[in-house]
Amino acid sequence: MAVGLGPLPTLHPVPGFELGIASAGIKRPGRKDVVVMRCAEGSTIAGVTTTNAFCAAPVLVTRERLEGDVRYLLTNTGNANAGTGPDGLVRARRACARLAELAGVDEAAVLPFSTGVIGEPLPVEKIEAALPAALADLREDNWALAAEGIMTTDTQPKGASRQFEHDGVTVTITGISKGAGMIRPNMATMLGYIATNAKVARDVLHALVRDAANKSFNRITIDGDTSTNDCCMLIATGQAALPEITAASGELFAKLKQAVFDVFMEIAQAIVRDGEGATKFVTVQVNGGGNHQECLDVAYAVAHSPLIKTALFASDPNWGRILAAVGYAGVPNLDVSKIDVFLGEVCIASQGGRAASYTEAQGAAVMAREEITIRIELGRGDCSETIWTTDLSHEYVKINAEYRT
Amino acid sequence: MAVGLGPLPTLHPVPGFELGIASAGIKRPGRKDVVVMRCAEGSTIAGVTTTNAFCAAPVLVTRERLEGDVRYLLTNTGNANAGTGPDGLVRARRACARLAELAGVDEAAVLPFSTGVIGEPLPVEKIEAALPAALADLREDNWALAAEGIMTTDTQPKGASRQFEHDGVTVTITGISKGAGMIRPNMATMLGYIATNAKVARDVLHALVRDAANKSFNRITIDGDTSTNDCCMLIATGQAALPEITAASGELFAKLKQAVFDVFMEIAQAIVRDGEGATKFVTVQVNGGGNHQECLDVAYAVAHSPLIKTALFASDPNWGRILAAVGYAGVPNLDVSKIDVFLGEVCIASQGGRAASYTEAQGAAVMAREEITIRIELGRGDCSETIWTTDLSHEYVKINAEYRT
Repeated sequence: MAVGLGPLPTLHPVPGFELGIASAGIKRPGRKDVVVMRCAEGSTIAGVTTTNAFCAAPVLVTRERLEGDVRYLLTNTGNANAGTGPDGLVRARRACARLAELAGVDEAAVLPFSTGVIGEPLPVEKIEAALPAALADLREDNWALAAEGIMTTDTQPKGASRQFEHDGVTVTITGISKGAGMIRPNMATMLGYIATNAKVARDVLHALVRDAANKSFNRITIDGDTSTNDCCMLIATGQAALPEITAASGELFAKLKQAVFDVFMEIAQAIVRDGEGATKFVTVQVNGGGNHQECLDVAYAVAHSPLIKTALFASDPNWGRILAAVGYAGVPNLDVSKIDVFLGEVCIASQGGRAASYTEAQGAAVMAREEITIRIELGRGDCSETIWTTDLSHEYVKINAEYRT
Repeated sequence: MAVGLGPLPTLHPVPGFELGIASAGIKRPGRKDVVVMRCAEGSTIAGVTTTNAFCAAPVLVTRERLEGDVRYLLTNTGNANAGTGPDGLVRARRACARLAELAGVDEAAVLPFSTGVIGEPLPVEKIEAALPAALADLREDNWALAAEGIMTTDTQPKGASRQFEHDGVTVTITGISKGAGMIRPNMATMLGYIATNAKVARDVLHALVRDAANKSFNRITIDGDTSTNDCCMLIATGQAALPEITAASGELFAKLKQAVFDVFMEIAQAIVRDGEGATKFVTVQVNGGGNHQECLDVAYAVAHSPLIKTALFASDPNWGRILAAVGYAGVPNLDVSKIDVFLGEVCIASQGGRAASYTEAQGAAVMAREEITIRIELGRGDCSETIWTTDLSHEYVKINAEYRT
């Protein structure tokens, strides 16, 4: 049911970054559920992880090791290794240790990532048994299969790729992501891996992943549930024959930043387009706020309201529900007589009430579309924020009621 | 589909408080949609209203007049008169003025209440035309029909009644409520009217309605959407041959308070039991918090999570989703290793992980019930909070996707 999400675009290989896929049979025999990624020696890596206090065991291990020399990323689906206590940590480390042993690197050079059901013991033996096949499969042109290998309730693989030239050298940025439910990332996404062959100083890379995630993964929501396992990693292999990029690198830094932001945004929005049960791709834009937080508060109140989400599913321009959500978003001293609300290009509410020019037919025409923008003008200041979300359909209930059966 | 909500209990008449019902044909011809309530001269009244910044026109008028001498309450369903701007105020006042004229009282003695679709002009002519019939119908024993007359998407009328004796005099407290969706009251409910024949000083009555609403209507949530029209009114007619009750009235005050709290709780919980599409009545109890707010934050994170609500609908003991919600509730410095979670009497998570004693069969047995308690022990302090909510079913989506069709 993905909205406006076509087949995977061409995912250009990133020199120095290889991906290998295998089937460990974690949930179902034969399903690709283990992905190993190898970063060339000398790569830098930076990442952001979930703010959920119940973060999963692999997230804790990844956080410990992120500042070191990372060479491998090990991902499994079908089991989140979350809510598993000290035993979860033991199992996450054990899978990494086995991969390190097979690859001949330090155990601390392996970062673990897990996604799937919460609270079940990680079947670490199955993962260990699949590692030789994953290592044997490592190839730079394996992005598309890896995008499939990290899927859970996703209906389609998600990826994006950009290239630009600098001094005759091609710089590539390619990324993949997964996620369709339990999506309200906060400082991270469900899982996202983005690599470039540029050489980037670690502090610059860290600022880049934080800023890019903040404008993309941290601006999407499907059900308002922040996952225990969110992680987003940005790897720079440094294989491009260009000087190391710092914030002072001028044009080269600007080009890289733009391309990285584009890839992040495309794979973050792909998660919304493939949101569980989604039939609409909804942009909520809040302008005229006194500060960014109040814009976000209004945008998330609208994006999380089950009443608005069901009206979107029904293509019903029930704008009263939008006004109600703006009203309970908690903005201090909100002057409702200054608020305008637009559905697409149609002004539905003006100065806090139904717009004089508005007709149901206009609203219905916008609501019939698959991609809808709700724009709210607060009339309080100059700040704006934009987030992306989905509707709430019968299918969402069905998927999540039957997830474990 | 109401959960554990039987037919209306006996609603004892309250001397000095009459109710009259009529059909104005606001949404459908013949449906009871106008209710007039008359308070005997000398009654005191206190109320709480929505905190939504987009509060409806009748809420604004009621707030203005609540401190004066109130004699009539005029309620219509089918139209919320919200998001209607200055014209909405004109229409709300006009309906009150007509009732005041017919009844021979000051216009300011009439409080208006509306519930129904947001953003449509109030059909004030229809309401005016129905007023004579409603006035002619005024009777003290009309509570049950009035409970029907204030319904919108409610499947059942809601009411409760208590009586106690004091010095040989019977004190009665009877109340009705309506509401099934857009329910996350804040300082009020959708609509609630509770009357007593006790004589109560206005300041005492105000404290009573605030405290009672805070422990009942303000602790229920169905979809997290705070309505634009929430109002809860407590009327004391003073017809009982007893001295005026003040906070210093000792035993009499204590008896009244207990009976008022009981009625509030019963009709607030009735709203949850009749929640849109509800198949479960869910109590979320958070103990061991460092303060009340963090208990509420955790309770509402659990109660609003679509993932938990769909798991409840499916009777799936997916306790990992509960841990995840506790984890993102925003409690500062949460030590997850101190947290225990119980489903009914079954400990499902202990010290932040799956309880060693827990089996799926135990969880499934609790989840199969219609009434379920989720208890979370934070291990941080001595504060507790309890709220009540529902599951999220196919029927909820259906009701709200088709509300205006």
